[in-house]
Amino acid sequence: MIIDCHGHYTTAPEPHQLFREAQVEAFDKGEVLPGLPRISDDQIRESVEKNQLRLLRERGADMTLFSPRASTMAHHVGSEAVSQQWTGACNDLIKRVVDLYPDYFIGVCQLPQSPGVPIEHSIAELERCINDLGFVGCNLNPDPSGGHWTSAPLTDRSWYPFYEKLVELDVPAMVHVSGSCNHNFHATGAHYINADTTAFMQLLAGDLFTDFPDLRIIIPHGGGAVPYHWGRYRGLADMLKKPLLAEHMMKNVFFDTCVYHQPGIDLLFRVIDIDNILFGSEMVGAVRGIDPETGHYFDDTKRYVDALNLSEEDHYKVYEGNARRIYPRLDAILKERGK
Amino acid sequence: MIIDCHGHYTTAPEPHQLFREAQVEAFDKGEVLPGLPRISDDQIRESVEKNQLRLLRERGADMTLFSPRASTMAHHVGSEAVSQQWTGACNDLIKRVVDLYPDYFIGVCQLPQSPGVPIEHSIAELERCINDLGFVGCNLNPDPSGGHWTSAPLTDRSWYPFYEKLVELDVPAMVHVSGSCNHNFHATGAHYINADTTAFMQLLAGDLFTDFPDLRIIIPHGGGAVPYHWGRYRGLADMLKKPLLAEHMMKNVFFDTCVYHQPGIDLLFRVIDIDNILFGSEMVGAVRGIDPETGHYFDDTKRYVDALNLSEEDHYKVYEGNARRIYPRLDAILKERGK
Repeated sequence: MIIDCHGHYTTAPEPHQLFREAQVEAFDKGEVLPGLPRISDDQIRESVEKNQLRLLRERGADMTLFSPRASTMAHHVGSEAVSQQWTGACNDLIKRVVDLYPDYFIGVCQLPQSPGVPIEHSIAELERCINDLGFVGCNLNPDPSGGHWTSAPLTDRSWYPFYEKLVELDVPAMVHVSGSCNHNFHATGAHYINADTTAFMQLLAGDLFTDFPDLRIIIPHGGGAVPYHWGRYRGLADMLKKPLLAEHMMKNVFFDTCVYHQPGIDLLFRVIDIDNILFGSEMVGAVRGIDPETGHYFDDTKRYVDALNLSEEDHYKVYEGNARRIYPRLDAILKERGK
Repeated sequence: MIIDCHGHYTTAPEPHQLFREAQVEAFDKGEVLPGLPRISDDQIRESVEKNQLRLLRERGADMTLFSPRASTMAHHVGSEAVSQQWTGACNDLIKRVVDLYPDYFIGVCQLPQSPGVPIEHSIAELERCINDLGFVGCNLNPDPSGGHWTSAPLTDRSWYPFYEKLVELDVPAMVHVSGSCNHNFHATGAHYINADTTAFMQLLAGDLFTDFPDLRIIIPHGGGAVPYHWGRYRGLADMLKKPLLAEHMMKNVFFDTCVYHQPGIDLLFRVIDIDNILFGSEMVGAVRGIDPETGHYFDDTKRYVDALNLSEEDHYKVYEGNARRIYPRLDAILKERGK
């Protein structure tokens, strides 16, 4: 099987986005938030079949861990109540996609974070998505302020109640910021990659996995800048008197393959242990065009991985085994299906 | 010749640092700022000969473009007056190092930036350092707030008066942040690398080099995350309807080789044109230890570059030619010396 661990519903039907606009407008005017929109199964089918499902099939992958669009989580917009309602709507829509195409999509949830609001307030939605909707993971935003970075680092104890719940439910978190309202940071060109790098360094400087040895964190977009600067991070761990990274972090931290050119993928696999790499494409996502140098989509990351000519064992790990290990609830679902 | 384009005076004599502490304390108490400290030539000699000069010789480089310690520029500390006084002291100390060891060090200046203060207020110090002290470039901080990112992006017109002066003086700027007072960002493990990535994306999203075709910007630390995600940036340029990066930016933007392991350097040279890469080590800097995997200093970047077995032409460009082209005042100094 080929499991893409990183897909967002970037093509949700128009009523979903119109609802969001109405919701934000109502908040701004101090009015009652609008009711949820009607979206037909056909609208969902059309939005997925023309896009993610078509590309999944064309590229020869089997399924995607599917979560709400990251850039529109926009935890910084509105209030906690706005974020709660919007998050519920986004996760419910993912559940409908999964129900329509259970062989192709498995849910990963957005959280109703809001700047300054304790992370405990996101636990109920996490439990609902995992226990009631059958999702297998979540996207955790280390910066709900949207580029102002006003929260505590991920190693701060204020995050611990959420980690306890993740461990209890046995689900991992992908660290994933949303859009940026800081004009210095282009969302997909700076804020995403910076957040990945920042999160890794926070984890390096702390000792979170001493307190949570079973916690699993996925850092997307190939780990931000980290593999390229792997020597810097090994050296900083040394200066900070931490154990070797393999021992200090790399039983708990994983990178995906959302790196959109062959040399980047080559580097990732050269420096990062195969057990720490999950296949991901983030399609249809940040970069949608065709690379004039190859004639293929930039985000067709399977091509780059296939070009590595991995051993059968490594091929299995990257495309399936690591995902089943890091997302045990995915593994359980697949086993139920005899896969 | 082998010219290291990126060295900081991280080992300045103790009185320099004690002065800084007294200065900040005086500011905090609302007292008159203290006078500049006395530092003897012997103190300077000792601080350099045991460190940068020793390593320069051991590693087989010839000279370093030398600027004040980046992490202690700390533009966010104190006030504009504090930044002006501190910057003057730092640049004067660089000048003394250069005067003691003219064959080994050429000056690059710090700027007296301060959050919310127009960049025009840094022009006088730039002119003093270039015209009076004989420096050949400057370090420009895109985030004088120290990790809160409260300034306008580098493409904003508020920066233009400074760019006009850079072009007039024919000196480049290295984009370099300082320490972080945002607890989310470790200085050398996150803030530096994020700033590099952020600056590149700002330049990509804008059209600065249409307005300033002769402006030259060095993005240090191997360009942050950019070469590793070169496909993402090529794809984003396409989505933003910009020309190819080679045309859009890469006549004006340069990366150094401050990447502390062989795979990272290999990637840098694989994806970035040789004309855009400057040898740099940032020694003695962010990462000071010895890599247990190689037995050599992490920041001995010359070893990684030498391992590439570059052609004679490319070797010349990376170690000397590009620096002489991008820093014409360095070239003039060397020519005067018959080099």
